[in-house]
Amino acid sequence: MESIIIYLPVIMALVGLAFMAVKRSWVLKQNAGDGKMKEISDYIYEGALAFLKAEYKLLTFFVIGASVALAAISFIVPTTHILIVVAFIFGAFFSALAGNMGMKIATKTNVRTTQAARTSLPQALKVSFGGGTVMGLGVAGLAVLGLTTAFILLFQFFMNGAWTSTEDMTIVLETLAGFSLGAESIALFARVGGGIYTKAADVGADLVGKVEAGIPEDDPRNPATIADNVGDNVGDVAGMGADLFGSYVATVLAAMVLGNYVIKDMGGAIQDAFGGIGPILLPMAIAGFGIIFSIIGTMLVKIKNNEAKEKEVQGALNVGNWVSIALTLIACFVLVKYMLPETMQMEFFGEGLKDISSIRVFYATVVGLVVGGVISSVTEYYTGLGTKPVLAIVQKSSTGAGTNVIAGLATGMISTFPTVLLFAAAIWSSYAFAGFYGVALAASAMMATTAMQLAIDAFGPISDNAGGIAEMSEQDPIVRERTDILDSVGNTTAATGKGFAIASAALTSLALFAAYVTFTGIDGINIFKAPVLAMLFVGGMIPVVFSALAMNSVGKAAMDMVYEVRRQFKEIPGIMAGTGKPDYAKCVDISTKAALREMMLPGILTIGFPIAIVLLGKLVYGSDNQLIAEMLGGYMAGVTVSGVLWAIFQNNAGGAWDNAKKSFEAGVEINGEMTYKGSDAHKAAVTGDTVGDPFKDTSGPSMNILIKLTCLIGLVIAPILGGHMETGVVEQDVQIEMNVESAELAQAVITYSTTVNGETTTEEKTFKGTQAEVKSQLEAFEKTTQVSGENDKKVVIEKIDIKK
Amino acid sequence: MESIIIYLPVIMALVGLAFMAVKRSWVLKQNAGDGKMKEISDYIYEGALAFLKAEYKLLTFFVIGASVALAAISFIVPTTHILIVVAFIFGAFFSALAGNMGMKIATKTNVRTTQAARTSLPQALKVSFGGGTVMGLGVAGLAVLGLTTAFILLFQFFMNGAWTSTEDMTIVLETLAGFSLGAESIALFARVGGGIYTKAADVGADLVGKVEAGIPEDDPRNPATIADNVGDNVGDVAGMGADLFGSYVATVLAAMVLGNYVIKDMGGAIQDAFGGIGPILLPMAIAGFGIIFSIIGTMLVKIKNNEAKEKEVQGALNVGNWVSIALTLIACFVLVKYMLPETMQMEFFGEGLKDISSIRVFYATVVGLVVGGVISSVTEYYTGLGTKPVLAIVQKSSTGAGTNVIAGLATGMISTFPTVLLFAAAIWSSYAFAGFYGVALAASAMMATTAMQLAIDAFGPISDNAGGIAEMSEQDPIVRERTDILDSVGNTTAATGKGFAIASAALTSLALFAAYVTFTGIDGINIFKAPVLAMLFVGGMIPVVFSALAMNSVGKAAMDMVYEVRRQFKEIPGIMAGTGKPDYAKCVDISTKAALREMMLPGILTIGFPIAIVLLGKLVYGSDNQLIAEMLGGYMAGVTVSGVLWAIFQNNAGGAWDNAKKSFEAGVEINGEMTYKGSDAHKAAVTGDTVGDPFKDTSGPSMNILIKLTCLIGLVIAPILGGHMETGVVEQDVQIEMNVESAELAQAVITYSTTVNGETTTEEKTFKGTQAEVKSQLEAFEKTTQVSGENDKKVVIEKIDIKK
Repeated sequence: MESIIIYLPVIMALVGLAFMAVKRSWVLKQNAGDGKMKEISDYIYEGALAFLKAEYKLLTFFVIGASVALAAISFIVPTTHILIVVAFIFGAFFSALAGNMGMKIATKTNVRTTQAARTSLPQALKVSFGGGTVMGLGVAGLAVLGLTTAFILLFQFFMNGAWTSTEDMTIVLETLAGFSLGAESIALFARVGGGIYTKAADVGADLVGKVEAGIPEDDPRNPATIADNVGDNVGDVAGMGADLFGSYVATVLAAMVLGNYVIKDMGGAIQDAFGGIGPILLPMAIAGFGIIFSIIGTMLVKIKNNEAKEKEVQGALNVGNWVSIALTLIACFVLVKYMLPETMQMEFFGEGLKDISSIRVFYATVVGLVVGGVISSVTEYYTGLGTKPVLAIVQKSSTGAGTNVIAGLATGMISTFPTVLLFAAAIWSSYAFAGFYGVALAASAMMATTAMQLAIDAFGPISDNAGGIAEMSEQDPIVRERTDILDSVGNTTAATGKGFAIASAALTSLALFAAYVTFTGIDGINIFKAPVLAMLFVGGMIPVVFSALAMNSVGKAAMDMVYEVRRQFKEIPGIMAGTGKPDYAKCVDISTKAALREMMLPGILTIGFPIAIVLLGKLVYGSDNQLIAEMLGGYMAGVTVSGVLWAIFQNNAGGAWDNAKKSFEAGVEINGEMTYKGSDAHKAAVTGDTVGDPFKDTSGPSMNILIKLTCLIGLVIAPILGGHMETGVVEQDVQIEMNVESAELAQAVITYSTTVNGETTTEEKTFKGTQAEVKSQLEAFEKTTQVSGENDKKVVIEKIDIKK
Repeated sequence: MESIIIYLPVIMALVGLAFMAVKRSWVLKQNAGDGKMKEISDYIYEGALAFLKAEYKLLTFFVIGASVALAAISFIVPTTHILIVVAFIFGAFFSALAGNMGMKIATKTNVRTTQAARTSLPQALKVSFGGGTVMGLGVAGLAVLGLTTAFILLFQFFMNGAWTSTEDMTIVLETLAGFSLGAESIALFARVGGGIYTKAADVGADLVGKVEAGIPEDDPRNPATIADNVGDNVGDVAGMGADLFGSYVATVLAAMVLGNYVIKDMGGAIQDAFGGIGPILLPMAIAGFGIIFSIIGTMLVKIKNNEAKEKEVQGALNVGNWVSIALTLIACFVLVKYMLPETMQMEFFGEGLKDISSIRVFYATVVGLVVGGVISSVTEYYTGLGTKPVLAIVQKSSTGAGTNVIAGLATGMISTFPTVLLFAAAIWSSYAFAGFYGVALAASAMMATTAMQLAIDAFGPISDNAGGIAEMSEQDPIVRERTDILDSVGNTTAATGKGFAIASAALTSLALFAAYVTFTGIDGINIFKAPVLAMLFVGGMIPVVFSALAMNSVGKAAMDMVYEVRRQFKEIPGIMAGTGKPDYAKCVDISTKAALREMMLPGILTIGFPIAIVLLGKLVYGSDNQLIAEMLGGYMAGVTVSGVLWAIFQNNAGGAWDNAKKSFEAGVEINGEMTYKGSDAHKAAVTGDTVGDPFKDTSGPSMNILIKLTCLIGLVIAPILGGHMETGVVEQDVQIEMNVESAELAQAVITYSTTVNGETTTEEKTFKGTQAEVKSQLEAFEKTTQVSGENDKKVVIEKIDIKK
């Protein structure tokens, strides 16, 4: 039995990938149009490839550098195995592969969607959603395949494929954390770099093309127009894919780590039909089934009526989505009942060991699925077309850009209220049900249908691109009408998808945070210690500064683009008449270089700060690893809390501004008057959208990566700060018999031996005072022997001589 | 000796108030001008009085309501004495009195400054700064007088004026917390209401007057112009005064609370020349000396040269400021050496008792003074005229309002970097020097020169008003030139003053936070407990939502004003020709009502949430007060961290936008071209300033009150969550003698009595299992008797019967 279950997720991932391959070849077989359509789509494809190539070059250097650093750590810290480097490279490779695959299919599907829209809307949806499905299954399949395979190999290597002890499994999972770190590092490049790329190209193309030269958007005479379209794929498709790939892997990993500690709490070993590792395998199994259910869900997304509108298309997506979620819910019940012991013991901080029945773990997964659903509705309420908050922004546009901007900012800020209360309730309740294992499984359940979520997400930018191609190749208006319907639905799914990404990042970070605390073996993170509180402040500041850096980067990169487009307009003869050919590649190159250059500083901030804190802590507190671990924990909590807030604020403000601007296209009533595009109010709304663009496409989504990567780095550093104390230090229960009421003086001589790197020294310590004092001194000393964080140090109390 | 020291701050406060009275009568004796000048200034004075009157009416209801609630608490919680209600009313009264005094003198000084500016610049500075001095000394004098008198009376009442025990002193200080709560509640009204008032009037006056009717700013034909000028006093003078009054009182209180715990850590009593309460008296003594040094500082602020420019005026202010800070530094050294024991024992969380020499406490005060100085420079760097960040915003204005807004937001966000690192370093180092007592004393030292800071702050809006009066009464241009010099310096001091206010609020909140933890007697706040972490999230969200509510309130209140001004223009005949008299009072009334109405929701949010958390906690966890106290602590930490970030972000972004706009007055070089007022770039900068206005004058400064009030409410709730465990529950050390290595089973029967409200019941509990198990069960039981948070419950273990 156990052999099947451990391989089951691998099989399911392979099924997902096989289905993806079939779908992919179907999409590629579709008619790719002709003439100008094909030409434009080829430019976009080549531009996307150019970005990928440049990115991979930079990534190679990064991966080498990070591998060396990880190797160094593995030499210093005995419990960190050199295999972490292999896992890291493996994770980076899988993440890059998924990104590559997703971007390629997206840039191939766009033109095919345009072509399909020439025949019918149902066909157009089928093609565009088909492309999205390939993307979604590719990402989810590779994530599960990579993580599970890595786990099986490491489990074989370290434990010969059979349970030995929590300590050994911890080493397996610590090494596996390298896989997650690799995936998330690539996500940093993809999400932040992609966000800068897409907005730099967008702003650059608009400023010179629309404003200075007076040519329409998506005009092929604009040298930056291809870069702009590439940007949609780089940011919305590849960026989102890498983000969710990272969340997916990290969530499952964190749940496995916490599952391992459940086994520890149950006495260090359990008897079940899965080789005694049921709680560790469960999150992988849920992920595996999620892929299958996503496939089923994607098959349900179809419309029949060629006259369908947004509502029907959205409805088709909803059916697929809800069915996959409902199936996941059922699977969670069955799997939890099947794979977990009927009753588990879990350690609750400050409350001791508790008996937790397996049904409570199921309730925790329900919490996760509910959060995933509710967050979408909340996000839609604050950012959707025609909702109260968006209409309020529209009204405020009538008194100028200033009031529009204030209204948008306020909307984004207010939207943190229900969202944070939802998250807080989710943390609290899933913890109440099944401890931090429950929190991690809530996240796992939510992430199970990642493939479906991504399919829905990716279909939006594909349709957007399809519309652009229709426009540029001057198709019949009905074609653009059909792609517009898809694009409009895509805008909604993009906003709700961002909500889902935030929720997943938040729960993932919490699970990682919990895993961190158990890895380091500290007894909680006490913010009443001033250094910890100081780091909470510093952590809270990082997302704010990160966002500002990302926003400034967009500005700088956009200026580079502006100068290049101006130069081409001036130097290429006949470009405006359409006889000269603009140098698209040069603009793509500028966007690419700017994106990769500008993401350095935010990247260094993300990776450097946790390391700097540990170094600073070591400098000040030496070997008090407990305190340093708490400081880093405080920092992680600060980044997570602040990062989640700024992600919600920026995404929702940006989304609301965007749709406030879009409202003018169909006309809006302001003070009893219908107002349209071109009005002063519309211009004010455009200003708001300009502010919102980097919010929602660059800095906002980057927050997800920031918080997850911060927590992952913490997890990888954790062993340095004293994991596995059990293996290093012998727990001792000193027999202290004192009469604390007595005023008589006492003296205790303690003999203890310290073993460091195989060398043993024996020393003596004398405590004097009243009996109560001596007792408390002895107890304090006993405590230090138990929590000494250095792994290669072993303290044994040989003898205690008490004289009353 | 002791009798002198305890009364010394009272005497110094009285000296300060006497000096204030002399200065006040000097200012009032100055020539108040004639004709139109006098008429306009009378309108402003009356408008300010009208606001105060309406505010006090509302406050009366609030104070009555809050008093009833406090009285209810004092009946439920035995250790909360009914006198807390008296202290609360006392604190509210003193704070209101200080605000009243400050606003009256400010509105009397403005016209006298205009008149003085007709003779010379030195005279104008003397008058305007004289008004500021009256304001500063009034606030600081009343704060010290009120707090110290309340302390002396409570000390007499509860302890007969002599040290008995830490527990009794805790009751004194808990009751004294009522004084601080009263002061801070008034500050909430003054700061938030004032912020809404000033911006509603400003925006309303501009939108209809400048934009629709095309008349200049400060034109007496505009019905809202008086409300606008009243707003400057209500927001910048009264709001800032109430804010610092609250910080001042809360800081000293928190330091006293922590001083009390230093005495506890030293064994519960110390021998010194101050009746054994030296550490408690020290913060009051520093505050008292600070008043005297502020007087000396204000006397040094003068210029002689009538041709002086901004630099000389700023220089004069700097001399006064630095001298008062330097004198405070010396006084801190002397007082610390004189009043504290040579060596103290302080309990450091997780590190146990440490010996702390008094010089380390002095170092902590140095940290506070340094932070106060550095924060001003940092704030000036990000917001000052001609600085790099502000010039960058100017450059970005050339590409439109969108890029200007993005640049301003990014500047505000980046400015959190040095500021938060500074705060983090301050927390960490002052704690490292002398524990949380050190943190509180750092704050106390920084706040010691509050009178001087407020004098410098208040002189700005006075000069601003003076300039307005000069304009409206059509004075000679030289008069306006002179007031402009003062106004320009006032703009810089306003921005740095806001930085100082944030720093003081941050350190005060931390000190209160520390006092909270010691009051509740919990052993730290562990964010690894999910409910605590959830509350950290919720706390982090509150400042964001609070800011949004405040911003929306400004918008709503401004619309009320717009409709009223439009109505008057339409309905009052001859108003534009200057023959009809606008109804100023009506506009003042609208601003007043809107401000008071709109501040309700943010106020309820601030006061309601901590209470809701405790109720929710009680509902879920019943009597587990430890956990509920930690949850509230997590909430407080979230509010503080997020509130400080949003305060810095909003204040600095607003300040930077303001000065970016002002840069155009003298002309700026953009892309090699000189650009002035009226250009497109300037218009873009005006949009940025519109966004920044509520940021820097309403929501940003409100953060200070939010975080302090939250922590104060926590402090007042603290006793409910189990303070004074020592008095309620007998600490018992159970003798447990077990052989944990043994596999033999054991049984322990424990007999214990529980006394609740005088009734005693005796029960038995039996533990069975291996010896190790029984031991840990016994220990766990013993622990619950020790931490049972209910004060009226007494658990005594009568007998333990162990059968091995």
